[in-house]
Formats: sequence, C-alpha cells, structure tokens
Amino acid sequence: MSLGEFSVIEQFFSRPVSPEILGVGDDAARLSLPPNTDLVCCKDLLVEGRHFFPNVDPFRLGHKSLAVNLSDLAALGATPLACLLGVGLPRVDSAWLEAFTNGFYHLADQWHCPLIGGDTVSSAHGITISVTALGFLPKDQPGLRRDCAKAGDDLWVSGDLGAADVALKVLSGELDVPSEIFESIRSCLEQPEPRVALGRALLPLAHAAIDISDGLVQDLQHLLKASHCGAVLDWDSLPVHPSINALNRQGILDDETIKSAVLRGGDVYELCFTAPSQHRQSILALGNQLPIALSRIGTVSGQSGLSLRSANGESIVLAGGGFDHFNRLNTHD
Amino acid sequence: MSLGEFSVIEQFFSRPVSPEILGVGDDAARLSLPPNTDLVCCKDLLVEGRHFFPNVDPFRLGHKSLAVNLSDLAALGATPLACLLGVGLPRVDSAWLEAFTNGFYHLADQWHCPLIGGDTVSSAHGITISVTALGFLPKDQPGLRRDCAKAGDDLWVSGDLGAADVALKVLSGELDVPSEIFESIRSCLEQPEPRVALGRALLPLAHAAIDISDGLVQDLQHLLKASHCGAVLDWDSLPVHPSINALNRQGILDDETIKSAVLRGGDVYELCFTAPSQHRQSILALGNQLPIALSRIGTVSGQSGLSLRSANGESIVLAGGGFDHFNRLNTHD
Repeated sequence: MSLGEFSVIEQFFSRPVSPEILGVGDDAARLSLPPNTDLVCCKDLLVEGRHFFPNVDPFRLGHKSLAVNLSDLAALGATPLACLLGVGLPRVDSAWLEAFTNGFYHLADQWHCPLIGGDTVSSAHGITISVTALGFLPKDQPGLRRDCAKAGDDLWVSGDLGAADVALKVLSGELDVPSEIFESIRSCLEQPEPRVALGRALLPLAHAAIDISDGLVQDLQHLLKASHCGAVLDWDSLPVHPSINALNRQGILDDETIKSAVLRGGDVYELCFTAPSQHRQSILALGNQLPIALSRIGTVSGQSGLSLRSANGESIVLAGGGFDHFNRLNTHD
Repeated sequence: MSLGEFSVIEQFFSRPVSPEILGVGDDAARLSLPPNTDLVCCKDLLVEGRHFFPNVDPFRLGHKSLAVNLSDLAALGATPLACLLGVGLPRVDSAWLEAFTNGFYHLADQWHCPLIGGDTVSSAHGITISVTALGFLPKDQPGLRRDCAKAGDDLWVSGDLGAADVALKVLSGELDVPSEIFESIRSCLEQPEPRVALGRALLPLAHAAIDISDGLVQDLQHLLKASHCGAVLDWDSLPVHPSINALNRQGILDDETIKSAVLRGGDVYELCFTAPSQHRQSILALGNQLPIALSRIGTVSGQSGLSLRSANGESIVLAGGGFDHFNRLNTHD
C-alpha cells in the first residue's frame, strides 16, 4: 500500500480537535492559553536504533514518544495543553502507523493534550520521531525548577528504579532473565507513565524537581549543580523494582548490576524532587492519593557533591556519569 | 574532538535568553505570551539526503532550518516568539556545529526569536533537524488562514519563482547551468528568507494565505480546497526569477523546464495570498515599503478547479501535483 504525504496526514494525524483550536491542516496551529498562565514547552527526538529498537511494538512507541515529553512538562509541574508530532518514515506502513498513532492518541487523550500539528517526511535510514509538548503554569506559580533545592530539603523519588535498565540490557543481549519476569519489567522501558498528576500536585510542596531520564545520579547531579547544593542518598531507601530484587534473590542479577541499574540506568521517567521536611506527611499522603509510590531517598546538603550511604553507615562519593547520547555512540561505534 | 551531549548543549545551544524566560538547561522552557494574544506554533523536520545534501554549507542549513518554520508562522501572519531545536547528529563536529548554530542564531536574532530549548541526540544515519517555532497573534485578529479566500479576490505571490527548483536540479545533476548563474539561484534554495514582516503586514489586507513550500500549484490548491473556491492564474503575471529568464533566453533552459519550476517547484518560502481588489494599491505600497516584490498573479473564482491562462488567452486546467515527500521517495527508491 502506498500513500502520499497528505493522505498519511489525513488518515493518521488529523483527528478533530476542539473548535477553538486551529489544528492540523494549516501552516501552523493556533490556540489560546488559559487566562493568567505562562507557556511551558519542551521537545524530544527519538531515533531508531538509539532510543528504540526497530521491532519495538508501535503502540508502545507511540505512547513513549509523547510520554517522554509529558515527563518534561511534569518535571516543571506544568499541565499539558497540546502537542506537535514530526515523523520521518522510511516507508508508509499503514498497520504500523495505525498502532503508533493509537498509542500516541491514547496517552494524549488521557492528559487532554490534543495533537495540533506536525510534519510527516520520508527518511531513508530508519524512523525518527520528534515531539513538542506544550503546557502551562499559573503566572504566579514559580513552578518546579532545577535550581531551587535548599540545603536540608528531603530528597524524594517517585515509582521504582532499575527495571528499564535491566530490560534494555536483556533486549541488547547483555543479560538473560526468565521471560515471565522480563515481561514485567519490559513495559517500564517501553511504555513509561509520565508523572503529570504528581508534578502538578507537587507545586505547593516541592522546591525543585527533575525527571531522571538520564539516570538518577546524572540528573540529580544536574539539579544539585543548578541549585549549588550537594546531597547524601541512602541506598536502603532507594525503591528497587520488585522484579529486580527478585532476580537478585534468585542469583540471576548480582549486586553490582543492580546498583548500576538503580543509580545510573537511563530511560526512567520518574521525578526526583526536593521538599522541606515539614511537607513529609503531605507528600506521603499525596502518594497514597494518586496513588504513586513516593520514597524519601536522602537529604540535600549545603556542601557540593553527591554521596551514597549504605546500611552499615559507609559513605561513598558518586562520580558523574549516566546516559549520554554521544558517549553511548562513542562506545558502540 | 569528542564532546559529550551536555558539553554540546552547553557550547552550542545555550546562549543567554532574556531573564523572564526559563530557557535551555531545565526540563522544559517557560515563557509568557504578550497580553491578549493566542499562541501559534508549527514544526518542520529536515532529514539529510531528503531535504538537504550532506555537503550543504552548515551556516545556510542552520538558517534554513529556522526559516522554513518562520515561513509557516508568516503564512498565518504571526509574530515569532521563540523556537526549539532538536538535532540528531552522527558525530560531534565542532566546526560544523559552530557554523550551523551561527546560521540559526543569525536568523533567530533578526526576528527576535530566541532558542529556548530542544534536544541533542546521536543519530547513526545522517543528520536530522527538527525545529518548532512559536509565535503569537492578537486574540481579536483571525489571522491569515487557508480557508478564508473569497470568490473575486485577487491572487498574489511574493518574491519570484523557479530558482529553487532549478538549483535543486543542478545539484542533483539533472541540469547544468553556468556557475556564475548557479551561484545567483543557489541561495534561493539554500538560504530562503521567511516572509515574516509581510505576513504580519498582510493581516488587515489579505483574506487567506499559505506558504508555497510544496510548490505554487500544490499549495494554492490546498488553499482553494480549504476555501471551497477555484482560481485562474495568469502565466504572464507569474514572477519568474530573472536568472531563470536569462537562462531561457540563452537557450540553456527550455520553456517546459521553466514552467515546471515556476508552477510546481518546491522549497519556495514565498507567500501566496488572496485579498479583495480594493486593497490593490495598499498591497503594492506595502511591497514598496518592505521592500518585497508582490505580484498579482490571478483571480479567485467561485468555481472549483485551478487553471492557467497564457498570453494568447488559452486556458489549461492544472492538475494536482507538487512536492510530496513519499511520492518522491517512491520515485527514488
């Protein structure tokens, strides 16, 4: 089946949007921000072979393409408003496009984030996906920035850690785990849930936040550097994914692999945030209400540097490092 | 020279923006719209080997990456506000990045359109560029839509036509022209000027507008279809690029090649717009003032279909067709 560019746009990328939006079909889209809000926007590029495997389930890929952008909005506490989608495709595969757009639209509907425009082009070498997410924040609300952590703040993380990295290593052939466990961790990598509701609810509670898509240590270091602070992490407080712990107990994954996955594994769309200690109970209550697991994993300090404290009280300094697209390239090529 | 992802962002993509904008460096950017305006946004993807040759001058490519997006804003009459830039790069080439970003920033500065965010990733197979442009329109201003042309409107086009298509054919080895003439038409393809000032100034004068990046006939047909109208174009009024006319007089380009380049050649970032005839003098005066050549090229009619009238009064119906990324792919692969 061969479709032209405009047929592809009409068939897959032109769902109706509310009448006050000028959407897909004109040169540009037009929409109103809610009164007394600022615009928040972000953009992520996903490249076949780098960010996803060629055979990934297209529904999950559609979901993830939007999810990674909504996660950036969530990290500022912004509410999604609309999104734009650019796709470069080597060929027009209607079944693939149908599944991909279903995954994309399903998440877009969940967060009331209509697709209002984009671009569809051919790309000889593999699929490229570029999403821009637009959101808003009340004008009188500073939002969850990276640079507002304060010494003495509690350090928190949402969800659990380690599964995406282990799933990636299994798919890359670096690790082998029983298939029933693999299925339980695979969706953490392929279909992450953006923490939009959490980000918004943290606005009155948190000082600073970041999504840890490049790994907990690396992204936390970005936050600490921007805030001119340091931090101590408690290893025993870090929320390791239950399947990862099970693999450890079964002797399938060793301690070092787990430590690396939890601390440095990328593709994690959880929020790491800091908040004053007087908000501890409110934050735990919020976690119960959403519900999203929220773990207090350490403390922000006035001294620079990030260290990890183990159960026996030993403390080691964590050097930089996490997921870097160019270092990854240098390693592989 | 090998740089990591964050060094690339810091070195090339982190110019200071005004203090009221939260820009590059956080998960997402935050900015205010001017009072009583709506947001206008668009997104274009440029893929190496499809939209540009691998050896294209990087300064020009940086310029064009933003220009094609500003052209979409211009087609709505919007004023640029800010932009986001995603780049997928096979390697970190500092000289290339320096020139590319210089071209991008040069145009961004010209239109007060700061770069406020984006994404930098590695991409094994060639360069991919994704730009999102944000702009605004006054809330009480309907803007230049595609679907508001009226029967009886004059049909106008800015600039001149044919050069980008001939330049593309020369670079593809399909045509050969003397090198001094080639240089005069090459920049039309590689460094187009977005008609931002024109679009804005047309807000009180024009009914409908579109940029003709996919070719005059194809994009005009989109406009006519959206407006439930037809049109007659006068061949003798079409503004052919002077070098193309010269090549015709010298017998280097035949009439059919020129006709195809003028009517169907893509990568043209001029505006085609319709306006009531009582605004003719104002539009000509605007062209003199900007200055941008503005040519009255035909008339919108109440009957559907697009036809071309030649000097001897003959009229031929123009079928669809122009630049289609997937058809182009189908042809080449």
